[in-house]
Amino acid sequence: MAKNPKNAITPTRAENYPEWYQQVVKAADLAETSDVRGCMVIKPWGYAIWENIQRKLDAMFKATGHENAYFPLFIPMSFLEKEAEHVEGFAKECAVVTHHRLEPNPEGGLQPASSAKLEEPLIVRPTSETIIGATFSRWIESYRDLPILINQWANVVRWELRTRMFLRTTEFLWQEGHTVHATAEEAEQETRQMLDVYAEFAEQTMAMPVIKGEKTEGERFPGAVATYSIEAMMQDRKALQAGTSHFLGQNFAKAQEIKFQDPSGDLVYAWTTSWGVSTRLVGGLIMTHSDDDGLVLPPKLAPAHVVILPIYRDDAERAEVLAYCESLQADLTAQRYDDEPVRVRIDDRDVRGGEKKWHWVKRGVPIRLEVGPRDVAAGKVFASRRDLGGKGEGVERAAFVANVSSTLEEIQTALFERAAVARSEATVKIDTLADFEAFFADSAPGGLAYCHFVDGPAMEAKLKELKVTARCVPIDCDEEAGKCIFSGQTSLRRGVFARAY
Amino acid sequence: MAKNPKNAITPTRAENYPEWYQQVVKAADLAETSDVRGCMVIKPWGYAIWENIQRKLDAMFKATGHENAYFPLFIPMSFLEKEAEHVEGFAKECAVVTHHRLEPNPEGGLQPASSAKLEEPLIVRPTSETIIGATFSRWIESYRDLPILINQWANVVRWELRTRMFLRTTEFLWQEGHTVHATAEEAEQETRQMLDVYAEFAEQTMAMPVIKGEKTEGERFPGAVATYSIEAMMQDRKALQAGTSHFLGQNFAKAQEIKFQDPSGDLVYAWTTSWGVSTRLVGGLIMTHSDDDGLVLPPKLAPAHVVILPIYRDDAERAEVLAYCESLQADLTAQRYDDEPVRVRIDDRDVRGGEKKWHWVKRGVPIRLEVGPRDVAAGKVFASRRDLGGKGEGVERAAFVANVSSTLEEIQTALFERAAVARSEATVKIDTLADFEAFFADSAPGGLAYCHFVDGPAMEAKLKELKVTARCVPIDCDEEAGKCIFSGQTSLRRGVFARAY
Repeated sequence: MAKNPKNAITPTRAENYPEWYQQVVKAADLAETSDVRGCMVIKPWGYAIWENIQRKLDAMFKATGHENAYFPLFIPMSFLEKEAEHVEGFAKECAVVTHHRLEPNPEGGLQPASSAKLEEPLIVRPTSETIIGATFSRWIESYRDLPILINQWANVVRWELRTRMFLRTTEFLWQEGHTVHATAEEAEQETRQMLDVYAEFAEQTMAMPVIKGEKTEGERFPGAVATYSIEAMMQDRKALQAGTSHFLGQNFAKAQEIKFQDPSGDLVYAWTTSWGVSTRLVGGLIMTHSDDDGLVLPPKLAPAHVVILPIYRDDAERAEVLAYCESLQADLTAQRYDDEPVRVRIDDRDVRGGEKKWHWVKRGVPIRLEVGPRDVAAGKVFASRRDLGGKGEGVERAAFVANVSSTLEEIQTALFERAAVARSEATVKIDTLADFEAFFADSAPGGLAYCHFVDGPAMEAKLKELKVTARCVPIDCDEEAGKCIFSGQTSLRRGVFARAY
Repeated sequence: MAKNPKNAITPTRAENYPEWYQQVVKAADLAETSDVRGCMVIKPWGYAIWENIQRKLDAMFKATGHENAYFPLFIPMSFLEKEAEHVEGFAKECAVVTHHRLEPNPEGGLQPASSAKLEEPLIVRPTSETIIGATFSRWIESYRDLPILINQWANVVRWELRTRMFLRTTEFLWQEGHTVHATAEEAEQETRQMLDVYAEFAEQTMAMPVIKGEKTEGERFPGAVATYSIEAMMQDRKALQAGTSHFLGQNFAKAQEIKFQDPSGDLVYAWTTSWGVSTRLVGGLIMTHSDDDGLVLPPKLAPAHVVILPIYRDDAERAEVLAYCESLQADLTAQRYDDEPVRVRIDDRDVRGGEKKWHWVKRGVPIRLEVGPRDVAAGKVFASRRDLGGKGEGVERAAFVANVSSTLEEIQTALFERAAVARSEATVKIDTLADFEAFFADSAPGGLAYCHFVDGPAMEAKLKELKVTARCVPIDCDEEAGKCIFSGQTSLRRGVFARAY
């Protein structure tokens, strides 16, 4: 790496966005490819971000009445056979367990033991509707047992040919909510409530603006009556589906015999929902905020809010500077941000100052403090905000400590606003097919296009040609008379169209 | 169930301990068998206990400098071939993934697609030394990169023929620590430090007394130089290995090429450790404290410290009683126990009073409060401690609130002391083979026998005959000259022998 790189990340976003993304992941030490094709190793800095995501979301799930539980990793193959539509969408590309023992082979290695072939293959869960549904059918007898409001934090496996760290990997970590209700209305309400939880989390905690909407028929979860999603826009103007919430109607209840006795004594099928977000959110976080110097973290999810870099030339200075840094750390930790103590690290590694500074720039820590003997003498700190870039400024220590919480909130808000402006600049209403084609021309920057549409062959063909997808029909948009830009048919709502991850 | 059962659990511990255990698990709604052989469903009440275990342990791991990360679920078969001794012990009974796609079969069902057979089978991790070691080998270049102190929370799979909920299941949840050090001394220190962490957690948080010791050669983790464990005694006087910490020497470093440049510039093998506890701890918790009325939870791990049961006859009483209960809940929640707010639930389900009371008795909540109109009028609560049994007593509300934290600590301490007394009563020093045989006779209650021993064929044969195992050589015992009760050879330390789970 050059000694004074103009930018810490090569290439820049403008030069090659996909490669920039990989380099940010690497430079921030978030994850790496593993020895297993399509699976990643999530490194401590990346995992700490995921832990923060988990902790915040988990509290929101519990506040809305959900409890965590754990269901088997494996799904008997026959369970997937039961729900034909579900199989069609999900069960094909998956990890299939066929044996339960290894034995020595003639070459001195190992092989699956032919005497230990499973009677029925087991599938590593790609999602758990079937096995959880079968369990729920045993839990529920009467309407008094409803609702059932369960969440699971787990790993899932979907065999992917083309993988990208965090965005699409064969194994990934996620949460999957599964609920059962006595009425369609209650299940629909749950579906929408969890969509709201996801949107609130994305905007308030990730500082990532999202559109809440309903998926078109072609983009629906297999077996769902309605699929809702939150859609975010990345800095390359492509959309990222960041979370989904499904109203499953009685489809899964019928496949898995989830029945209950209603107050009048009749045995009826229940109504179910499922909803999930995954480690993909970390990919969305990176692509929403990071810049050409690497990761930029919203304070609410940063593993460290503040990093202190002591600067000294000899042992005498070291003792004095470190003592100052440690008492500064104690003062800062006593402050609270977002209902938790401020998270502070001191980096006293024996590493050159420039290298150390860039280490934390690339990792996206919101505030960096440099402290040398002159700062100690003057009772100051030299503070730099990651989101602003630039050289930073000397600040009175006491004032910095007193304001640290509001500074962090300022950063959190600034990141959201910056992302909202970027999205707004990339968002258009389009009313003709010619404008739509021009907007998504390879030479154009693209973005989010709000268009009248009617799902059908004309639309599907055009979208395929342009490599554009229907992201969702936004919930917050009013009805508005118009005509489908693809077919000319009458339409009452606009959908959002974009290239997507 | 009988209306006034003498005991909530049938059979009692004395009648049939193994069956009592299963019934406690069921009555407390902790877990159930799943549709996948050997795998369990961990239900919300059981999972909440595991979440508390995780949160407490995770804080202890972080306080000792460890960071969490995540590694692939799958291990390439060739990785297991590399470490022959490790394969011998672990890799045989495991879930083997051989295909990555399902396809329709002629009967209208599904089958693994022959066109999607993996070139190299993947093993669902039974433990992660091999894949994590391979990753570490890429992370480490110089002594400056050491130590590496990593923990992973994950699911693992070991194909088991005979399973028992929490104690031995095909899939289970655990944490596995993996660390790399520059010197043998540092790695040994880490191994012992984590054993201490486990012992402290078991005794202070689980209220479960444990013996810290080193495993005999025959009981060592495959590939380890030394294996340490914490051993607890259950109420049936059988031992339970509750956690292990392994000093792996350079064995895994050599198999996985974990090398580093030392300060003098030489490329040398590193020293590694691994350590783990699992959902088995929940089984240990149940069998240490529970009684013939069901689960008894130590307050530090109880999902609810206090449950409030409102009692009323009509709507007018209901409004008054519920308002009192809610303000009581608010007052209690404002109190802190074990550095967290006191956890309080109100159970206002429309269920008979007796049934409701037993519901919470069986789930082991430390304190039960019954509140009726007369309590409201008198400013009282009717409080029962789960650990004491009996009918409970009326207490001034204000006094109860003010003392709740110390009451919980009293319960925590009482449970530990009760378990320590039981263990002490079942512990003997034995110096002759005849006494040993009598102690472990089928008609005798058994327990923990401290005996001089020298590992060898005479001992192995006798232990096999009596179905007794060498649990460990306790660390805290002094050296003491003696003779092996099996062979007569000279011995300097006593080992602990017991029947075990």
